[in-house]
Amino acid sequence: MSSNATPSESGVTPAQRWARAGHKGCVVWFTGLPGSGKSTLAREVERELFARGCHAFLLDGDHLRRALNADLGFSPEDRSENIRRTAEVARLLAMSGQVTITAFISPYRKDRANARAIAAASGCDFFEVFIDAPLEVCEARDPKGLYRRARAGEIAQFTGIDAPYEAPEAPEIHVRTSEAGIAECAAMILDYVLARLEVAALAPAGTRDSP
Amino acid sequence: MSSNATPSESGVTPAQRWARAGHKGCVVWFTGLPGSGKSTLAREVERELFARGCHAFLLDGDHLRRALNADLGFSPEDRSENIRRTAEVARLLAMSGQVTITAFISPYRKDRANARAIAAASGCDFFEVFIDAPLEVCEARDPKGLYRRARAGEIAQFTGIDAPYEAPEAPEIHVRTSEAGIAECAAMILDYVLARLEVAALAPAGTRDSP
Repeated sequence: MSSNATPSESGVTPAQRWARAGHKGCVVWFTGLPGSGKSTLAREVERELFARGCHAFLLDGDHLRRALNADLGFSPEDRSENIRRTAEVARLLAMSGQVTITAFISPYRKDRANARAIAAASGCDFFEVFIDAPLEVCEARDPKGLYRRARAGEIAQFTGIDAPYEAPEAPEIHVRTSEAGIAECAAMILDYVLARLEVAALAPAGTRDSP
Repeated sequence: MSSNATPSESGVTPAQRWARAGHKGCVVWFTGLPGSGKSTLAREVERELFARGCHAFLLDGDHLRRALNADLGFSPEDRSENIRRTAEVARLLAMSGQVTITAFISPYRKDRANARAIAAASGCDFFEVFIDAPLEVCEARDPKGLYRRARAGEIAQFTGIDAPYEAPEAPEIHVRTSEAGIAECAAMILDYVLARLEVAALAPAGTRDSP
């Protein structure tokens, strides 16, 4: 539709921004059932990364559905669009130098594959993090009372009840929040991500080996 | 539509991010006719800010129309949505610590007012920059050949030809690219923005007066 638009390049490259940030920007994509612990873990990982001197920024599904994606509902099409827009924003934040953490149910494999492709097209690493807990555990937790409302028929198209969740087949990180605590799961994610930010590789020449 | 979404807060505040960045994040919103010089000036301002050690990030209208906003056309409704989404992304980038420069025609006053309100709601400063040049000058420049195509009837709803442009009534910054060169206009914008980033106010105690 936007045929009368020609792109013009930014004068600053992601590599320049990442060198200044001291690490690469990337997308850390959390996916899982409602109540699996995505938001809680994402906040913990964001806070820990920031405390360690990294640039980290959380895009939370609940937040974005009240802002950028406030016009979208929960049909399969709207869920896809929710994820597409989020992936585009995550890409921009990653290019700007942030370890961008997204916490969205993102139930469809094809949407998550699309999010990965969007990041990759801009040279940004994408790490899929499966926040895994059995449906019965998530439903028993029911932190927002949404499973109860879905069972009562007050919410339609609720993931796990009357909308599908397609679990990742080969996520970069797989944590089981029914078997390990928040701190342990967060540490697993942090270890994986911190090892891949290429902090040393990006340090300016001359400072690489300094104490 | 998104009634089954409750917001959860990030564990890191914009103030914490801005302190680390060394300056406040904000939105510097360029508006003007096609061919007025928005993208050229925005790239120049971004590059200059980055060279001075600031975090600066450009959202260019042409770019976003190939990515986040690729589903939108040029009807008044789609133009509003184009600006609304861009304002939401600009807000997130500003919260993350970027001097976020947006280069969009953004022809409607109410859409720009909405963009300002979105930034303000997150505590981010918003500076409207009117990139001003007479229509006949822009049309003579016609850097992308779009005025010619619009006059030939090949493009409909083209701002300045058969779609309106509502000039800002009280922009924070007003540059006239038909009267001053790129470097001079960029310097005006830089001076204004740099004076409002509160770099000193945000420097950690003890470093404020150091050389």
